[in-house]
Amino acid sequence: MKVDKIGEFGLIKKIKNQVKTNSSVIKGIGDDCAVLKFTSAKFQLYTCDMIVEGVDFTSRDDLMLVGRKALAICVSDIAACGGIPCHGLVSLGLPLKTKVEDVGRIYKGLNQICREFGVNIVGGDISKAPKLTIDVSLLGEVEKKNLVLRSGARPGDIIFVTGSFGGSIKGKHLSFIPRLKEARYLVRNFKVNSMIDASDGLRQDLGHILEDSRVGAVIYEDLIPVSPWAKSLKNAFCDGEDFELIFTVNLKDARKLKSFNRGFIPIGEIVAKKFGLTLVNKKIKQKKIKLCGYTHF
Amino acid sequence: MKVDKIGEFGLIKKIKNQVKTNSSVIKGIGDDCAVLKFTSAKFQLYTCDMIVEGVDFTSRDDLMLVGRKALAICVSDIAACGGIPCHGLVSLGLPLKTKVEDVGRIYKGLNQICREFGVNIVGGDISKAPKLTIDVSLLGEVEKKNLVLRSGARPGDIIFVTGSFGGSIKGKHLSFIPRLKEARYLVRNFKVNSMIDASDGLRQDLGHILEDSRVGAVIYEDLIPVSPWAKSLKNAFCDGEDFELIFTVNLKDARKLKSFNRGFIPIGEIVAKKFGLTLVNKKIKQKKIKLCGYTHF
Repeated sequence: MKVDKIGEFGLIKKIKNQVKTNSSVIKGIGDDCAVLKFTSAKFQLYTCDMIVEGVDFTSRDDLMLVGRKALAICVSDIAACGGIPCHGLVSLGLPLKTKVEDVGRIYKGLNQICREFGVNIVGGDISKAPKLTIDVSLLGEVEKKNLVLRSGARPGDIIFVTGSFGGSIKGKHLSFIPRLKEARYLVRNFKVNSMIDASDGLRQDLGHILEDSRVGAVIYEDLIPVSPWAKSLKNAFCDGEDFELIFTVNLKDARKLKSFNRGFIPIGEIVAKKFGLTLVNKKIKQKKIKLCGYTHF
Repeated sequence: MKVDKIGEFGLIKKIKNQVKTNSSVIKGIGDDCAVLKFTSAKFQLYTCDMIVEGVDFTSRDDLMLVGRKALAICVSDIAACGGIPCHGLVSLGLPLKTKVEDVGRIYKGLNQICREFGVNIVGGDISKAPKLTIDVSLLGEVEKKNLVLRSGARPGDIIFVTGSFGGSIKGKHLSFIPRLKEARYLVRNFKVNSMIDASDGLRQDLGHILEDSRVGAVIYEDLIPVSPWAKSLKNAFCDGEDFELIFTVNLKDARKLKSFNRGFIPIGEIVAKKFGLTLVNKKIKQKKIKLCGYTHF
């Protein structure tokens, strides 16, 4: 059976079942970051993301933006767990035709993110490869009390997002700013029950929170922030690579958050699992939202 | 200028110059592992290696051995710094034709190394890719007093290796056992001044110790353990992917080590930098050894 029959997430489930970990691992495969025992007050966060030419960027994209993206998507994972990034490794798979200046531009982009978010690049690997491939792994840390996983959403929680969705292919997928400052503000001032960064689309990534938290949700069409580059609501639900945060807090915190007016946008609420995921449209009609979004297979 | 003009190590030097790190980084780019501040008694080690179909293995190789290799080369890096591995991430770049069973076999191999060396796989990433690509990053730890870098060799040190060199393409590059137990025995019982794992060939990797330690070496043809799969001494010097350790200890420790007869093989000694790297052949003639070994570009 080929991998596209089982799909990316089916494959991850299979892998998860095949892998065993010991008690040093607080959270293994299946969240934005792995969570490891660290100090008495902190956990270590650990994540990686691989991007490949022709899949995650094209040969016409500015390599500075490509380098930037390679690290920014990892910073976004650390943000989604409530932490701050610190040390990264960069594996480069380079076609023979690659120019030295190309590698320089990739690192220029990586360094931009390093400076902005306090990341140290401490090593890596270089290999020949048929297409430009960049795999970044990133370490971070988070105070134990500030750790947020996908699995903590509770019925009654309000669902927020940090920005608009859809049409990221027009540029945002390369130039987005990881929502690290927003995430840190949130975890330090509120009890964030669940959080994820939307890499595979609002529908699919909200779905991960619902599945891992064993809850349902009602979201309101009127409230979904659709990006100016999205052609329709469907793009907002399904396009992917917006790298906005989706998170849930209880009603009391939600009221405070909204009144602070810092760009956190409520889009709906968490309900019991049996209700599934429902969209309420502008005519106040309810409908189910079909699963959609980016998968590699 | 294309990357093959400047070469893999020229490229690494350029990258190193482009990257800045803060005081949390004990050793950044340029050793077997990055070394990071950790606890009062220990450093954290951090390494990664990318392998690509058609470069590091062929489409005919057993994917269990390929998965095994992907992690074993990282364990070998941790061993070379004197530490023990603990947590790893696995990024998989998969061609569309990949079967679910193929991924299962890769993980069977990864799990073999996990069990043998106490590694927990705690996450990863999956992407489409034109050729099967596996990038593993691995965390480890080492007692501060046991950390070994490439840069500590001193004139008068005896150079040892942990096994034979050459012809790894006949199988050893896929089935080798990382010399973790040997490395831990060494750092716990001796003062190991410098160490590296030989991934790019005896000549080139010994060269890295000499360059980073600013010393020279005399090695003896008679003493070089040439693998049964090597056709000539040149293979032993230049083939790469033996994943034996090359290390240096002072004369007193060298005498003890030899008498313990645990398979550590002395091949020469460290001398002042001005003497360069000299091979003494069976007729006791000295000659310079030309630089050779595996580079990606």
